Amino acid sequence: MEKLHPAMEEALALAHRAIALSEPNPRVGCVIVAADGSRVLGSGHTQAAGQAHAEVQALRDAAARGEDVRGATAYVTLEPCSHHGRTGPCCDALVQAGIAKVVASLGDPNPLVAGQGFARLRAAGVAVEVGPGAAESRELNIGFFSRMERKTPWVRMKIAASLDGQTALANGASQWITSEAARADGHAWRGRAGAILTGIGTVLEDNPRLDIRLWPAPKQPPLVVVDSRLQTPPDAALFVPGRHVLVYAAEQHAQAQAALEARGAEVVYQAGGPKGKVDLAAMLADLALREVNEVHVESGFKLNGSLLREGLVDELLVYLAPKLLGPGQGMVNIGPLQRLDEAVELEFGEMKAFGPDLRILAKVKASCQPQVGK
Amino acid sequence: MEKLHPAMEEALALAHRAIALSEPNPRVGCVIVAADGSRVLGSGHTQAAGQAHAEVQALRDAAARGEDVRGATAYVTLEPCSHHGRTGPCCDALVQAGIAKVVASLGDPNPLVAGQGFARLRAAGVAVEVGPGAAESRELNIGFFSRMERKTPWVRMKIAASLDGQTALANGASQWITSEAARADGHAWRGRAGAILTGIGTVLEDNPRLDIRLWPAPKQPPLVVVDSRLQTPPDAALFVPGRHVLVYAAEQHAQAQAALEARGAEVVYQAGGPKGKVDLAAMLADLALREVNEVHVESGFKLNGSLLREGLVDELLVYLAPKLLGPGQGMVNIGPLQRLDEAVELEFGEMKAFGPDLRILAKVKASCQPQVGK
Repeated sequence: MEKLHPAMEEALALAHRAIALSEPNPRVGCVIVAADGSRVLGSGHTQAAGQAHAEVQALRDAAARGEDVRGATAYVTLEPCSHHGRTGPCCDALVQAGIAKVVASLGDPNPLVAGQGFARLRAAGVAVEVGPGAAESRELNIGFFSRMERKTPWVRMKIAASLDGQTALANGASQWITSEAARADGHAWRGRAGAILTGIGTVLEDNPRLDIRLWPAPKQPPLVVVDSRLQTPPDAALFVPGRHVLVYAAEQHAQAQAALEARGAEVVYQAGGPKGKVDLAAMLADLALREVNEVHVESGFKLNGSLLREGLVDELLVYLAPKLLGPGQGMVNIGPLQRLDEAVELEFGEMKAFGPDLRILAKVKASCQPQVGK
Repeated sequence: MEKLHPAMEEALALAHRAIALSEPNPRVGCVIVAADGSRVLGSGHTQAAGQAHAEVQALRDAAARGEDVRGATAYVTLEPCSHHGRTGPCCDALVQAGIAKVVASLGDPNPLVAGQGFARLRAAGVAVEVGPGAAESRELNIGFFSRMERKTPWVRMKIAASLDGQTALANGASQWITSEAARADGHAWRGRAGAILTGIGTVLEDNPRLDIRLWPAPKQPPLVVVDSRLQTPPDAALFVPGRHVLVYAAEQHAQAQAALEARGAEVVYQAGGPKGKVDLAAMLADLALREVNEVHVESGFKLNGSLLREGLVDELLVYLAPKLLGPGQGMVNIGPLQRLDEAVELEFGEMKAFGPDLRILAKVKASCQPQVGK
C-alpha cells in the first residue's frame, strides 16, 4: 500500500462520505493544512450536485473556524475544477483564498477540466503536486471515470446465491437466500449507484420494489427496467413514490407506454439488440448521457447472461449464503460453453463476511472492455 | 481467542506437524518446561503409528539435550495415554521421568484412555490441569474424535467450482477449473486424510489418479471407491503403486472382483443402500473400524448428493475459481427442494485465497449429526 500523507488519508476518507450524495459529481475530499504542516485548517467533501465542491467546503470550514489559509497546502483527491458548471471553478476559489500549494491525487477526466485545473493553478503561482492517493481516488470514482473515459457507466451486477450458485429454487422461491445483514449491505450498494437496473423477467416473476429500505439513503436512485415489449404492469411494486422510473423498450406499444407514463415512468425506445430486444450497450450509453456513473444490476438469470455475453458487466457483487440448494436457478445464462477457456474470467477482490454470509467482489477481466479505474 | 501459555501454543504448533504422519493416532504435541518456567527442556509430537507419542518424543528430546526434567511441567495437547497399545503408556514415562505437573488440553476420547491417563498421573502424585487449548486440539483431531465418539469418520467433501457453482461444463470438461495453487492445497488435504473417497461415476468419467503429487506426502492414503456394481476398470488410473484401494460394492460380481483383487484392491460388499446401492453409512462405519479418522471426498454431483442427503457430510472444502461458466454440472445432486428452509445449512469457517482462487471451509449444520469437535 502507498504510504500517504495523513491529510491525504483524511481527504480520501472524506471523499467516501460523498458516496450516495454527490452523484453525478465525483466523490472528492479536501483537507487544508497550515503552511508549517502543524495542523488542519479546514476540510470538506463534495456536496449534492449544484452545491459546494470539496475545495469550497474546506475553505468555508476554515473560514468558519476563523483560520487564515494564506500560504496553506490543500490536499484534494481530484483535480480542482476550472469550469463554470453548476458551481464556480474551485481553482479560482483556491487562488483567491491564497492557497500556496495543491496536492491532488489525480487529474479530472472530465474534458471540461482535464488538466486545465492544474494549469490554471500553476499560472496563478500555486505549486501543484499530482499523484498521492491516485489509485484509491480512481477506484472510488470508478463510475465517474467510466462515464468520462468510456462514455458508459460502470456496471456492477449484484447476485445473491447459495454456496452452490443457486439464486432460486426450481419453483422460483428466492426470498430470502441471504441474511438481512447481507441484504442491508446490498441496499447500501443500491444507494451509491446512479441507477438500479433490472429486467422485465424479474419484475413479472418477483414484483420487487428494488428501493433502498435497509440503509439510510439520502435519495432513491432512478430505476431502469429493460422491458423490450413494454410488459411492465402499471401496478408493479417498483413504482415507489418519488423515484424516477425509466423503461427501455424495443417495440412500440402506445397504450402500454401511456399507462406507464401515467404512473410517472419515462419510456425510451432503444431497439437494435439481438432478437428484437433492447440494445443494451446503447441503453447504457444513454444512461451515461443522463449522467449515470454506476449502474447497479439486480436482475435474473437471463438479463445477467445477456449483459455478460455482450461484455457490458464490469464487476460482480456476489453474496453467498452458507447453504446448498441443489439444481435450481443458476446465476447467469451464458454458454453452453465448449471449452473452459471460454469462461467469463474474473479477478477476485475483497471478501468479507456479512452476518452468516460471504460477500465477494470480483472484476470482469474481459479484453473487450476498455480499462477503467486501473 | 483463548490466551494460552507459550508452551501450550508451541505444543499445539508441534501437534500440527503430526498431520499426515500420526494417522490413525491423534495429532499431539508436548513441550516440557523447567519447574521455574524459565525455559523449554524438550519438545516433540506424535510420530508414525507404532512409533513414539508426543510425550515420549519430548522426554527423549530433553535427554538428548542433557536436561533434567525432574520437577518440570509437561504441556501436552491431549491426555497422556494409560494403555499398552502399539507403544507403552505415556503416563508411566512421564511419572518415571519425574515430571511434577501435566497441563493437558483435553481428555482422550479413546475408551481405552478416557480419563484413566489423568487418574494414573494423579495417583502417582503428578499435578494435573486440563483445559488450555482444548478447542484447537479438538478441531485438529476432529476425525479422531469423530471415530471415537460417533464410530464414524469425519467426512470432508472437497469441491472445486466456478464462482457460479459449476464443477464442469455440460460436455464434462473440468480440467482445470481451479489454479495449481488451489490444487496443491487440495492435495495437502488429501494427504491429511485417513482415506480418499470417490464414486464410480468419477472413475468412469474422469479416470483420475486421486493421489498426492503436488504436496510432499509421507505416504498415499488408501483410496475408497463407491462402486455398487463393481464397474471399476482394472486398468483405471487410480491403481497407483503402493496405495491400498478399497472398493465398496453392493452387487456380487465374482469375475470383476477377481480382476480388481488381481490389481491389489480389496473388495468389500456393503449392500443395503437405496436402489440396491452401497449402504454409505455402513461403509463409513466400516472405515472407522479400519481406523480411518478423516475421509476426504472427491466425487461428483451424484455421490456428493447422496452423501449429503443421507446426512453423512460434516464439512465442505470448496475452492471457487474467479470465472463464470453458466449452466453445466452443479456441485451437489440434492432436491429439487420445495422450500428454502429445506436447504443443507452450513456455517462458513475460514476463507482464504490460493493463487487467484478462493478457498471456503464450511461445516454442515445438520441436526441429525451428533456434535463433534465443538
